Amino acid sequence: MEASLADWLRDRQRSMLRQMVKLVSKPGILSLAGGLPEPELFPTEQLAAAYAKALATDPRALQYGGTSERLKEQIVELASRRGIRARPEEVVLTTGAQQGIDIAVRSLLEQGGTVLLDEMSYTGIHQTAAPRTPEWLETPVDLEHGSDAEAARELLDQRKLEQRAAPDLAYLIPDGHNPLGVSVSEERRQAWAELLARHQVPLIEDDPYGLVWFEQEFAAPFKARIPEWTLYLSSFSKILAPGLRLGFMLVPEALAERIGVVKESGDLECSGLTQRAVSTVLEGDFLDDHLNHVRGVYAQRRDALLEALDRHLTPFATWTRPRGGMFSWLELNADLGIESVPLLERSLEQEQVAFLPGIAFSLPGSGAADRAKRSMRLSFSTLSPELFDGAVAAIARQVEQLATRHR
Amino acid sequence: MEASLADWLRDRQRSMLRQMVKLVSKPGILSLAGGLPEPELFPTEQLAAAYAKALATDPRALQYGGTSERLKEQIVELASRRGIRARPEEVVLTTGAQQGIDIAVRSLLEQGGTVLLDEMSYTGIHQTAAPRTPEWLETPVDLEHGSDAEAARELLDQRKLEQRAAPDLAYLIPDGHNPLGVSVSEERRQAWAELLARHQVPLIEDDPYGLVWFEQEFAAPFKARIPEWTLYLSSFSKILAPGLRLGFMLVPEALAERIGVVKESGDLECSGLTQRAVSTVLEGDFLDDHLNHVRGVYAQRRDALLEALDRHLTPFATWTRPRGGMFSWLELNADLGIESVPLLERSLEQEQVAFLPGIAFSLPGSGAADRAKRSMRLSFSTLSPELFDGAVAAIARQVEQLATRHR
Repeated sequence: MEASLADWLRDRQRSMLRQMVKLVSKPGILSLAGGLPEPELFPTEQLAAAYAKALATDPRALQYGGTSERLKEQIVELASRRGIRARPEEVVLTTGAQQGIDIAVRSLLEQGGTVLLDEMSYTGIHQTAAPRTPEWLETPVDLEHGSDAEAARELLDQRKLEQRAAPDLAYLIPDGHNPLGVSVSEERRQAWAELLARHQVPLIEDDPYGLVWFEQEFAAPFKARIPEWTLYLSSFSKILAPGLRLGFMLVPEALAERIGVVKESGDLECSGLTQRAVSTVLEGDFLDDHLNHVRGVYAQRRDALLEALDRHLTPFATWTRPRGGMFSWLELNADLGIESVPLLERSLEQEQVAFLPGIAFSLPGSGAADRAKRSMRLSFSTLSPELFDGAVAAIARQVEQLATRHR
Repeated sequence: MEASLADWLRDRQRSMLRQMVKLVSKPGILSLAGGLPEPELFPTEQLAAAYAKALATDPRALQYGGTSERLKEQIVELASRRGIRARPEEVVLTTGAQQGIDIAVRSLLEQGGTVLLDEMSYTGIHQTAAPRTPEWLETPVDLEHGSDAEAARELLDQRKLEQRAAPDLAYLIPDGHNPLGVSVSEERRQAWAELLARHQVPLIEDDPYGLVWFEQEFAAPFKARIPEWTLYLSSFSKILAPGLRLGFMLVPEALAERIGVVKESGDLECSGLTQRAVSTVLEGDFLDDHLNHVRGVYAQRRDALLEALDRHLTPFATWTRPRGGMFSWLELNADLGIESVPLLERSLEQEQVAFLPGIAFSLPGSGAADRAKRSMRLSFSTLSPELFDGAVAAIARQVEQLATRHR
């Protein structure tokens, strides 16, 4: 059947990211590589009680068509914490935010169409759009202010001058950017919002970390600024647990029916059982306490990572100082001439320490490839605070050795 | 954002089937319309215990990457009951069999490619392939022997003569056909298998009802005959419960990695929690007893439906005598001049009895449209046996009235 595979799939491989995650998740490895939330934070007891309740009391939980209208109201309430005014009719439940990306891409991207996105971004958008062989329009990112709205403006204005069509879609992660750990600054957010509305470019806003802020709430997302141009995605993976496979989209109401068709053709519907279990967990005050706890734990780990980076890598690199989420991004100084893939190999072999090389997050042939090659994503979500100093010291040791060699 | 939707989606609507299911599932209606399994058969207690166990004992249940290797072995064992020899490496878990269809279509169907399928078929294949605007090659079906292999042979041979490419894929439901309730005869199965292999056409074999046989096991499916040309799909929806949203594909091992990529870009992975819960339910002897119970209950309902049809509709129609599954298909005699949509309207209004008009299962412009228009799908899965006589008598009453009017 090999020869019968669709063209786009024939030479396709598992995403580099997922391959690497496998490579670096061997036992005994001190890993800053995973994109996993801390399992100790999963509300296991609450979920156990909620699943038991749904199975004991609600006969629709296991049947087709078991949509929980209550859950949609609760999602509207969750979104309001991000400053989004939505209605239950605008909610489309998804099998995690990844399915939200897939649905949004299928809904917006024509075969051979154009995608506007960060030069380093979540690989899920790369993977999901790839079958449509799109033209990729990359915009620069920086570690302090996030996605560069001014560069995007030049790009879009230039295209317009050349009478070329606007991109089919833009993809942005407003906060806790994966892999960059940055939040788009208020000024840039506003510039992006105006730009996208002016050029009539629909935005996929991927916001799984929106409620995982540390010192203060993140600025309002795009869905609160240009709702009619935004397909907003989030999920319960980072605030409850990924094993639930439950996320949601907020879409303009006029499109909800048709986007529901795309969902339906993908997997019919989300588990009614899981919908009910999550809805039960969201009742009452549990979520507030839980979110505070999650934020506290991750903030402490972020602090431990940043202290270790300050201590050991200041001469060699720059990195993001995340105000939420699970990641920091580190760029080795260009003049060191060190690439992160060989650095990873040495770190794994000699230090049993892992991270993800930045190149995993850029597209083949990206203009940012040189930068991505000397970068790494550092996850701070799953290590105890006391482990960061040793892990970062180990990476620094290898950097120093490689730097000496280069001189 | 309306104008930004991808072309295929702009004028798209919810499938007629799903619209109708909504229409006919009002309270108080005696419904032969739904495609739902009987909720009394869901193993609610076993699932409650299994979810509780997974949450109490297995920390990976709620994390990413929580694949249950044990479940893959159990799926291999399930498949062996259908005469399929598979290996765990050939299993791809899916969010229900609908996602299996979606993954298979994405893997095989090029934009504007060709799909070979029954002239009346499960709407999920229509809906999932539609975005690729395929050419549809319809093959006839009959109510006794199922999909017509000889007609397919002529079609494929003719295309070959004309030096046109073989179809990108074929889609067949070997047993308990939805909507037809028929099983493909042994002779036709063998002819189809040889034909597809000879023309090198990959087959999506959709087999959700494969273990829901009544008097005797169904004949071996295509996966047991031409495994290298078959992407086999099934799910736990009909044998445990649809609210689990868990199904599986069996694919040639050489393709498993790439088909895994398609799954991953769709929704990353299936819930580790649900995988564990289902795996627990499958341990021990429970499933055997459960399947026997399910078969017994549905067989009794099938009998009650067929008796009622024999009694009330013999002069007016022909129908399938299903050897498993959940559906029968009834075709009103052409000379009556009665279409099933107006018949449904009258049945709903005057009798509070519902069924699904056959036209919901044919493609727009289908060569079988005339036949589909005077047909209906009758589900026997959710009504108590004593209700069929009244429901069918009510439909017969309306048929008689319309027939008199036509004379």
